[in-house]
Amino acid sequence: MDPPGGDRLVVLGGKATGHFRLNDLPGTSGRLDALLRCLRAALLVSHGVRRHVSVYLVLGGDGVVLRVEGAGVKFLRPDERSLAVLAQKALAAPRAAQGFTEVRPGVSVADGGLAEVLADLGELPRFVLDERGEDVRGVTLPRGGAAYFLGDHLGMSALVQRSLGAREICVGPVSVHAEDAVAVLCNELDRARLSGR
Amino acid sequence: MDPPGGDRLVVLGGKATGHFRLNDLPGTSGRLDALLRCLRAALLVSHGVRRHVSVYLVLGGDGVVLRVEGAGVKFLRPDERSLAVLAQKALAAPRAAQGFTEVRPGVSVADGGLAEVLADLGELPRFVLDERGEDVRGVTLPRGGAAYFLGDHLGMSALVQRSLGAREICVGPVSVHAEDAVAVLCNELDRARLSGR
Repeated sequence: MDPPGGDRLVVLGGKATGHFRLNDLPGTSGRLDALLRCLRAALLVSHGVRRHVSVYLVLGGDGVVLRVEGAGVKFLRPDERSLAVLAQKALAAPRAAQGFTEVRPGVSVADGGLAEVLADLGELPRFVLDERGEDVRGVTLPRGGAAYFLGDHLGMSALVQRSLGAREICVGPVSVHAEDAVAVLCNELDRARLSGR
Repeated sequence: MDPPGGDRLVVLGGKATGHFRLNDLPGTSGRLDALLRCLRAALLVSHGVRRHVSVYLVLGGDGVVLRVEGAGVKFLRPDERSLAVLAQKALAAPRAAQGFTEVRPGVSVADGGLAEVLADLGELPRFVLDERGEDVRGVTLPRGGAAYFLGDHLGMSALVQRSLGAREICVGPVSVHAEDAVAVLCNELDRARLSGR
């Protein structure tokens, strides 16, 4: 299957795992809750979905990737518990040994972690959200789509970040949670796409 | 008790209620979950709290207001379930018949809905987030603090909105969820405060 087009957000969850108790998501999932909030912020808008955006959640605790494509996903709900159930079901579904397997419309899973994501992204320009980076407002974001990487509260190791060869951008003067960085970045992408910036 | 200083966000939840089942927050709380996500986005930053920001959640279903002050609140956690437990406990605590009662550090509750909020805000300049408003990037936000109103997915009735006498601003070209509008607005406020805009 071809990888999705448009903009792609890749969220690296240092210890995130799909094996958790629903009633204690933040305490048992290696902070998958933060990744799920990123997913919501990237894809859901009022009465709809950003269809040109796809999100990769890299669950570092499991070595597995959940990919959700705005163009294909259905019935995505905004609350953490519903998103956690979606992740749980997707990760429990049978999948191929290699590459992404679409386990329900717009939702795919792959073993292999970041390497699998990079293979899926191909030659897209890469950016990484880092508080030491250039202000995103001074950067021309590619109209043809790009990949945006960010880490959860554990951040991203310097080694991984260097290996991406990505341009470092920041969303503002305050270090914010990953999900808020996603909301601000997507606002910037909306403006670039619709305001003719 | 004096009202809190700084910037204040007022989120109007049309049918939100503090009487809900924790295991089905979005289905039983009149979408209090959306209000709680606004609270998180306004107050929590990496390893800290925006201490100059306060949030009012107006629970339309109960006619009650939850006020959380960044300057005083402790142990605020980012996940929806923890925030729901906080709201549940705060709303169950004894409170005075009039005005705000601080039920735990930085967390206060009042009966009376929006009118009680307006009394607490005093003469602060007022803005309302509305997708038909001026782009926030072209508006000078008051350095001395202001009140920012927004509605949940039910929006805000035209009548209420007019009664506020507030300047209408929007956060971008796409209509987004309230919590994402809060994240973008707070980014704008961070920039105004710290970048000398």
